Amino acid sequence: MPPHVAALVGSLRDESISRIALRETLATAASRGADTDLVDLRKLDLPVFDPDDENAGDADVVRRRLQAADAIVLGTPVYHGSYASPLKVAIDYSGFDEFENTTVGLLAVAGGSFPISALDHLRSVMRSLDAWVLPHQVAIPNASEVVEAGSIADDEVATRIETLGDQLVQYATIEPDPVSFEGEHNAGATPDR
Amino acid sequence: MPPHVAALVGSLRDESISRIALRETLATAASRGADTDLVDLRKLDLPVFDPDDENAGDADVVRRRLQAADAIVLGTPVYHGSYASPLKVAIDYSGFDEFENTTVGLLAVAGGSFPISALDHLRSVMRSLDAWVLPHQVAIPNASEVVEAGSIADDEVATRIETLGDQLVQYATIEPDPVSFEGEHNAGATPDR
Repeated sequence: MPPHVAALVGSLRDESISRIALRETLATAASRGADTDLVDLRKLDLPVFDPDDENAGDADVVRRRLQAADAIVLGTPVYHGSYASPLKVAIDYSGFDEFENTTVGLLAVAGGSFPISALDHLRSVMRSLDAWVLPHQVAIPNASEVVEAGSIADDEVATRIETLGDQLVQYATIEPDPVSFEGEHNAGATPDR
Repeated sequence: MPPHVAALVGSLRDESISRIALRETLATAASRGADTDLVDLRKLDLPVFDPDDENAGDADVVRRRLQAADAIVLGTPVYHGSYASPLKVAIDYSGFDEFENTTVGLLAVAGGSFPISALDHLRSVMRSLDAWVLPHQVAIPNASEVVEAGSIADDEVATRIETLGDQLVQYATIEPDPVSFEGEHNAGATPDR
């Protein structure tokens, strides 16, 4: 079976550069033989996360589509020096069932110059869920300068994205880590699932 | 005029320990002479943040109440090793107008043993908005063990909370920092306000 790669778009914005960059990541993954799925939160109904109502709206749909993936790429705009709240809403509805021992790639898009802290924070979130996060990550600073006519026009950024799409396929099937210390003690947002 | 201290509750949960801890933080602040305001997102209508619709629901109400504060305490449950998405939703609707040169205190509540990464991530978010974050922070691990009959029953945690409430009042009026390098370049979630 071909590897299945899903992309989770962390922005609700109409003209989201994260969405453009994830589409191109998946295009590379598809060219390497993967089945792909763009999980676009703008097309889903996912209210703000309340652990008293963890099946709200399309929560089940999001979880099912993430669970079907061998590898997941998370793309986020940088909001106030960190990952965007819409992305974390989707992750808070999810948990170990979606991410444990799953290959994860990270991509962040900043209006300004500093996309790194958002990637660090996301890496730490994924580590707490025992995901297997690729060392390679894509940081896109000064994002409005890299897009032309709805696609990435900057060669260096396009190459980083291509590497990410390639590695998501290359490492889609990984050997699970032994259960970690963090894994046992992380209560997470939805400890009962 | 007495200092005005606001608390932003980062959980929508009915039995939120973050809410209990913030109430006690504000009680200490009030006992030191402050006016206080508990901004409880459960009682407000704040949809998932979309920068194309930054005035959605009660966004204006949240911003006005935060702007009125001389000091703000952020309280969050730990969801997947980081701050909770509902809190970041409220912060994403806000920006420099609410947090720049404002005294901020941090408090995190974990079901498990590791509340520190959530506090680190929040500190980094607040730093990007040029807030003046108190060095003292409250970490509450294994939270279900510290609450009895709706209040904090653990002496050590209660003392940390009291220190936080005290310092929010003590440092409510601070000398603004000169504009920082980060501040000039941070595009943030809502760059136009």
